[in-house]
Amino acid sequence: MKIRYLHTMVRVKDLDATTAFFELLGLEKTRHDDFEKGRFTLVFMAPPGQPECPVELTWNWDGDEGLPSDSRHFGHIAYEVEDIYAMCRHLQANGVTINRPPRDGRMAFVRSPDNISIELLQAGEPKAPEEPWASMENTGHW
Amino acid sequence: MKIRYLHTMVRVKDLDATTAFFELLGLEKTRHDDFEKGRFTLVFMAPPGQPECPVELTWNWDGDEGLPSDSRHFGHIAYEVEDIYAMCRHLQANGVTINRPPRDGRMAFVRSPDNISIELLQAGEPKAPEEPWASMENTGHW
Repeated sequence: MKIRYLHTMVRVKDLDATTAFFELLGLEKTRHDDFEKGRFTLVFMAPPGQPECPVELTWNWDGDEGLPSDSRHFGHIAYEVEDIYAMCRHLQANGVTINRPPRDGRMAFVRSPDNISIELLQAGEPKAPEEPWASMENTGHW
Repeated sequence: MKIRYLHTMVRVKDLDATTAFFELLGLEKTRHDDFEKGRFTLVFMAPPGQPECPVELTWNWDGDEGLPSDSRHFGHIAYEVEDIYAMCRHLQANGVTINRPPRDGRMAFVRSPDNISIELLQAGEPKAPEEPWASMENTGHW
């Protein structure tokens, strides 16, 4: 019995805010469908060159109870990045809290506008420790 | 700035139960790492031929508060399947509740042991409506 991965879906409260967040990360919109009858919109965003690995954003026009919320059973969506310091600087400059700074030059965590935990991993070998990250404390949890 | 998708992570309460669930779906274990010091295990499982699209199962040996839990901000993990009726029969025969039966021959939802919502989509065209699915009611939500 064949099976094929399609996407990871997350619900969003503010589609523009979330689309902007994933664009900050470097993802591109690969599909946008408005469903008038069901009153919802689906937006697919994927890393360039990886259209087969999208995150699907579901936006219910009339709101979605409990968003943004936190929970434990969903872990995170992970992305590998070319330069984890540059990415964290870029996100921070755009108002994103670096919940788990890349003190080790290897791993960081941030949150989407709906508290979806996003893991960032340095491609290849970890980078040498570098300020301000090396001595930056955690903020919240992720 | 390059970015590459790595995995979707979900936390699990019972690693054996969850591994068995994803094996029922047809996923294969691609990596298993035990971390003695941190007292946790990571298991990666992916569809055959799609090692780049794994789900990462995180099992904390000393338990994980609030698992299994339900939440709204995480949506689901989606998989395309060759025969949605055969897959649902197979899952049901193994004790999995079909929360949203494939009444339309196209889409079904089930839950992992930790209530992670899993979407199943028929590859290609929808199948013709078929009993018992066509008249089966929903169970719970997903």
